[in-house]
Amino acid sequence: MLRVTAPERRYVITFGCPDRTGIIARISGFLAEHGGWIVEAAYHTDPDTGWFFTRQVVRADSLPFDADGLRARFGEVAADLSADSSWQVSDTGERRRVVILVSKAGHCLYDLLGRVASGELDVDIAAVIGNHDSLADITRAHGIPFHHVPFPADGKTEAFEHVRKLVAEHDPHAVVLARFMQILPADLCREWAGRAINIHHSFLPSFIGAKPYHQAHTRGVKLVGATCHYVTADLDAGPIIEQDVIRVDHGDSVEDMVRKGRDIEKVTLARGLRWHLENRVLVHGNRTVVF
Amino acid sequence: MLRVTAPERRYVITFGCPDRTGIIARISGFLAEHGGWIVEAAYHTDPDTGWFFTRQVVRADSLPFDADGLRARFGEVAADLSADSSWQVSDTGERRRVVILVSKAGHCLYDLLGRVASGELDVDIAAVIGNHDSLADITRAHGIPFHHVPFPADGKTEAFEHVRKLVAEHDPHAVVLARFMQILPADLCREWAGRAINIHHSFLPSFIGAKPYHQAHTRGVKLVGATCHYVTADLDAGPIIEQDVIRVDHGDSVEDMVRKGRDIEKVTLARGLRWHLENRVLVHGNRTVVF
Amino acid sequence: MLRVTAPERRYVITFGCPDRTGIIARISGFLAEHGGWIVEAAYHTDPDTGWFFTRQVVRADSLPFDADGLRARFGEVAADLSADSSWQVSDTGERRRVVILVSKAGHCLYDLLGRVASGELDVDIAAVIGNHDSLADITRAHGIPFHHVPFPADGKTEAFEHVRKLVAEHDPHAVVLARFMQILPADLCREWAGRAINIHHSFLPSFIGAKPYHQAHTRGVKLVGATCHYVTADLDAGPIIEQDVIRVDHGDSVEDMVRKGRDIEKVTLARGLRWHLENRVLVHGNRTVVF
Amino acid sequence: MLRVTAPERRYVITFGCPDRTGIIARISGFLAEHGGWIVEAAYHTDPDTGWFFTRQVVRADSLPFDADGLRARFGEVAADLSADSSWQVSDTGERRRVVILVSKAGHCLYDLLGRVASGELDVDIAAVIGNHDSLADITRAHGIPFHHVPFPADGKTEAFEHVRKLVAEHDPHAVVLARFMQILPADLCREWAGRAINIHHSFLPSFIGAKPYHQAHTRGVKLVGATCHYVTADLDAGPIIEQDVIRVDHGDSVEDMVRKGRDIEKVTLARGLRWHLENRVLVHGNRTVVF
Repeated sequence: MLRVTAPERRYVITFGCPDRTGIIARISGFLAEHGGWIVEAAYHTDPDTGWFFTRQVVRADSLPFDADGLRARFGEVAADLSADSSWQVSDTGERRRVVILVSKAGHCLYDLLGRVASGELDVDIAAVIGNHDSLADITRAHGIPFHHVPFPADGKTEAFEHVRKLVAEHDPHAVVLARFMQILPADLCREWAGRAINIHHSFLPSFIGAKPYHQAHTRGVKLVGATCHYVTADLDAGPIIEQDVIRVDHGDSVEDMVRKGRDIEKVTLARGLRWHLENRVLVHGNRTVVF
Repeated sequence: MLRVTAPERRYVITFGCPDRTGIIARISGFLAEHGGWIVEAAYHTDPDTGWFFTRQVVRADSLPFDADGLRARFGEVAADLSADSSWQVSDTGERRRVVILVSKAGHCLYDLLGRVASGELDVDIAAVIGNHDSLADITRAHGIPFHHVPFPADGKTEAFEHVRKLVAEHDPHAVVLARFMQILPADLCREWAGRAINIHHSFLPSFIGAKPYHQAHTRGVKLVGATCHYVTADLDAGPIIEQDVIRVDHGDSVEDMVRKGRDIEKVTLARGLRWHLENRVLVHGNRTVVF
Repeated sequence: MLRVTAPERRYVITFGCPDRTGIIARISGFLAEHGGWIVEAAYHTDPDTGWFFTRQVVRADSLPFDADGLRARFGEVAADLSADSSWQVSDTGERRRVVILVSKAGHCLYDLLGRVASGELDVDIAAVIGNHDSLADITRAHGIPFHHVPFPADGKTEAFEHVRKLVAEHDPHAVVLARFMQILPADLCREWAGRAINIHHSFLPSFIGAKPYHQAHTRGVKLVGATCHYVTADLDAGPIIEQDVIRVDHGDSVEDMVRKGRDIEKVTLARGLRWHLENRVLVHGNRTVVF
Repeated sequence: MLRVTAPERRYVITFGCPDRTGIIARISGFLAEHGGWIVEAAYHTDPDTGWFFTRQVVRADSLPFDADGLRARFGEVAADLSADSSWQVSDTGERRRVVILVSKAGHCLYDLLGRVASGELDVDIAAVIGNHDSLADITRAHGIPFHHVPFPADGKTEAFEHVRKLVAEHDPHAVVLARFMQILPADLCREWAGRAINIHHSFLPSFIGAKPYHQAHTRGVKLVGATCHYVTADLDAGPIIEQDVIRVDHGDSVEDMVRKGRDIEKVTLARGLRWHLENRVLVHGNRTVVF
C-alpha cells in the first residue's frame, strides 16, 4: 500500500565472535573484495564478556554470488574469527513466514493482521492456531487459515503435539505467542528455540506468571508495561527483545490497566517481531543485542 | 469479551459556568436531595477566564427519574449558576454511534475495528465512508456497511453533500476522520461542530497541512507525533484532545517515520475518541478540559 | 525568582471515609455555608474497598476563621461521615520544613538544592544529614546546616539515634532519603511514618535491595526506572508515590545505566516530594491516591 | 566519585564522505594495519544525499602514534575517500572545556554544576558569563569564575564583544547558552559555529521565539518540550541535537508548564552537551547524525 516499489534485495550477515583487533577490517575487506555494497552496518562489543557482535546489510546485486554462495564463502571468515555457531547469512528475498498462537484475547492478533493487511509488515502469516475458536472468523476474513486446537485439562500433551505438527508444516521464521495463555512444554521450547516470541503483559521481571495486571494493581505501581521476549523453559525469563510502559494512576481499576496495557502489548510485540524478522536481534546468554 | 457484566447505567452531567462560591454545594446538594450516588466527580477552574467546569457521573438507579427527568430538573440548577448553553446530561444507556471517514491508509480503521470487535470500545460503528474503496472488504468483514463516495477533482461539493447525507442518517455521536485526506468545507465543520474528530499526523502546531512526516524529516526533529483534535474551519487548528510522540533518529527515513508514527496516530485517536464518547472532553475557547 | 507575587494562602482538606450518598454535598455544603471559595477539588472512590477520598483547597481569606478554627468545625463533618483518623486540614501559610539524609551520591541532593535556590520548590531545607561528609561543602554553600553522622559497622544503633534526634529538632514535614544507603530500623520507620520518603533506583517491584542497576543489566531489561515511595519496615515495599523510566539498550554498561537512571531518580523524587508537601498524596493500605 | 578508574584514553575519528563500495574496508583496514583496537564503531548512510558517516573509537594504546600522528596518517584516507573538510580525530585525553552563558533562570546551570561536581560530567567549566549577576554566588561556590556582563539596551554590541573576548580566552569545546535570553549576533554565530549549543524551551519547530510556554498554553497542547540545538544565524532554526517532552493537562497554568518544562530542558541540554563533547554529533546540512 504505502510502499510503491519493492525494497532492493539484500543479504543480512549476523555474527558473534571473541573481540580482537582487525575483525571489522576482515569482514569489510572480504565484502569489499567482492564488490559488496554495505547499506547498514552495526557493531557492539560487550566489555564484560569480551564478545564482539555485528550485523551487516549488503545489496544483493552488488555481489557476484547468491545467498548460498555468500554463505559458503563467508564461512571461511567466520572460521578465521572463531565465530560462534549462530552466525547467519539471511536473504531478504526469502519471504518471512509467521505462525501465530492465540487464545481468546484478540488485541495482538487484530493488530498484527492489520499491519499485514495494510502492507506495513511485509510477511506471510501462514496460520493462526487457537485453543479457542473465537478468533477464527476474523483470521479467515483476512484469508489466513485458522486451526482450532482445544486444550482440555487432561489432554494438553496431545494438544501441544498437534500444535507442534501444525507449526512444523510451515517451518516458520517466527512462532508468535500473541497472548496464548498456555505454558509451552520444555521440548517445544527447545524445538522453537530462538524463534518463539512471547508478549508478556508486565514490565518483567515484575509480575511474572498469572494475572500481572492484578498484581500491578495490588502493588499500586504508577506505570504498567509489556515485555516481548524469546521463550525459554524458564517461565517469563527468556531474553528480552523489547519493553515499554504506560502511565496509570489511582483512578485506574484492574480493567482500566488491562485496557491501557493492551496498547503497549500490541506495539511492543509488533516491534519485537519486526526486529526478529529483520535479523536485528542477536542473543547473548540471556540478553539481547538489538541492532 | 473482557467485561462479563454490563456496566451500571449512569448519567453524566457536564457543565461550565462563571466561577463563584457555592457551585459544588449547589450541584451536589441537588443530587443528594434526590438520592443521587456520585461515582465520579471532577472539577476545574480556569484562573485566566474565571470559568468553572465539572463532570459528574451518577448511578442511574439512585435517582427517581430518567435522563429526561434529570435534564429537566437540572436545567434549573444550570440557570441559577448561569451555565453556558453547552451543559449536558448524557445517558450511558444510550449506545454511542460512530461514523468513520477514511481514504486509503487503513491503520487507524483497522485499529478501531479491532477495538470494537474485541469489546474494548463498546460502540456501534454505524458506517464507514471512503473516498476510495480499498478498505471496503475489511469493513464489511466486520459486519459494518461501507459506502464508497469518490471525490473527483471537479465534483467535491457533490461528494461532500453525499457524505453529509450518509452521516446525517445515523445522527452519530462522533464523526471520525481516520486519516481522511479531504479538507472539510466550512458548512460541514459547522454541522458537525463538537462531533468531528480528526487525527493529524504531527505534533501540532508543528507541521500543519500536507506531508507532515516529510516536513519532520527535513527539519531533523528527534520525535514525531500525532494530534487528535476537533475539526474546525481553520485547518489543523481546532481544540486539541490528545497528543503523543515517539522517538526517531537519523537512521529513520521518511518511510520509517511514517511507520513509527502510525502506532502513535492510532492510539492517540482511540484515546481521544473514547474520551469524547464518555463525555470527558469540554471545549473552552480553543482549548479542552479532559476530565 | 520566577514567582513575583506570593501565592494566596489556602487551606487544604484531605479526607477518607466509607463511600455513600451525599458526601460531596455535606462537605461542599459546609464550606459554602461559611463562604468558602474552593479553588481545587478532587475526588476518588475505590470500588474494591468502597472507600471515598477527597482533597479540597479553599482560599483562606474566604473563610471567617483560621486553620485551627476550620479544623475544629470540620471535625464535626468528619465525624458525621465516619472519616478515618488521617483526615487533615493543612495551611499553605505554614512553611514546609524538610530534612534530607544523604550518603555519598550527590545527584538527588544537588537537584533539590537547585530547585530550592531557584525558587521552584518553595520550602525550607532545615538540615542535611550525611553518613559521609562529601556533600557538606555544597550544602553549606547554600546556607544550609550539614551534620556528619558516621555509621560505623558496630555503631549503627547509636548513629540512628543521633539522626533521630537531629531530625526531631526540626519536626519536619518530610524526611527525604536522597540515596541514603542505610536501611532504617523499624522504630524510625514508625516514628517517621507517612513522612519518610525514599527514592529507590529501580522500577519497583523489580530489583528490590542492593545494586538494582547491576540486577537490571544482568536481566537485560530495555528500560530502567526509579520509584519514590513512603518508607515502611518492609524494605522497598512501602506505598509508591511516583515512578518513571528511561530507555537503555545493549550498548549501555552498568555505569551508563547508573548515569541515565540518575536523571530519572532526581525528577521522580522531586515530583513525589512536591506532591507530598502539597498534601496531594493520601495513603490507602499499601497504595496511594495522588490528587 | 562514581568512576573509580580513569577511562582508557581513546581517539575518536568522525568522518563524512560520498557513499561508495569499500569505505568501511578502507578505514578499518587502515586501523588494523597499525594494530588499532576499535572499541566503538557506528555508521550511517543517508539515502537522500548519498552521504556516508562514521564514528570510530580506537584505544590510544593500541596505536604506535599519538593523536597528531593519527591525524596526519588518517588525512590520506580522508583524501582518498573525498571526505568533507569536517573530518576530525579527537583525543579523549584532552580535557573538554566549556563556557556557559546564563541570564537569571538558574535551573540549567544548577543542573550542569551538579553533574560536574558529582563527577558525572567529566569536563572543566572554564567560566560562567551572565548578563545578570544572580547566579554568581552559586557558580563561585563551585570554584568557577563568574563574569557579569550587563546588556544595556543601548550597549548590546559592546556587551557581545566583551563576551566574545571572555569566551575566546578559553577556546572552549562548547559554548552553552543555558537559558541565555539574548539573541546572538550573526558574527558570533559564525565564530562559534558548531560549538554554540542552545536549549530552547519548546518542542521546535513549534513555538519559536519568545515565551514559548505562553504560546503552548494558549494553543492548548497536551505535551510541552525542549530542544537542544546548534546555534545558527536563523533564530531557533539550527540543527537539532536532542528533544524531549513532558505531559501537561488543562489543570496546568503557564507557571506549571514552566516548572514541568524545566525538568525536560535541563536533561535535554545535558544529553545534547554530553554527545557534543563526546564527538557523537555530526552535522549534515540542517540535520544531525547522533552516533
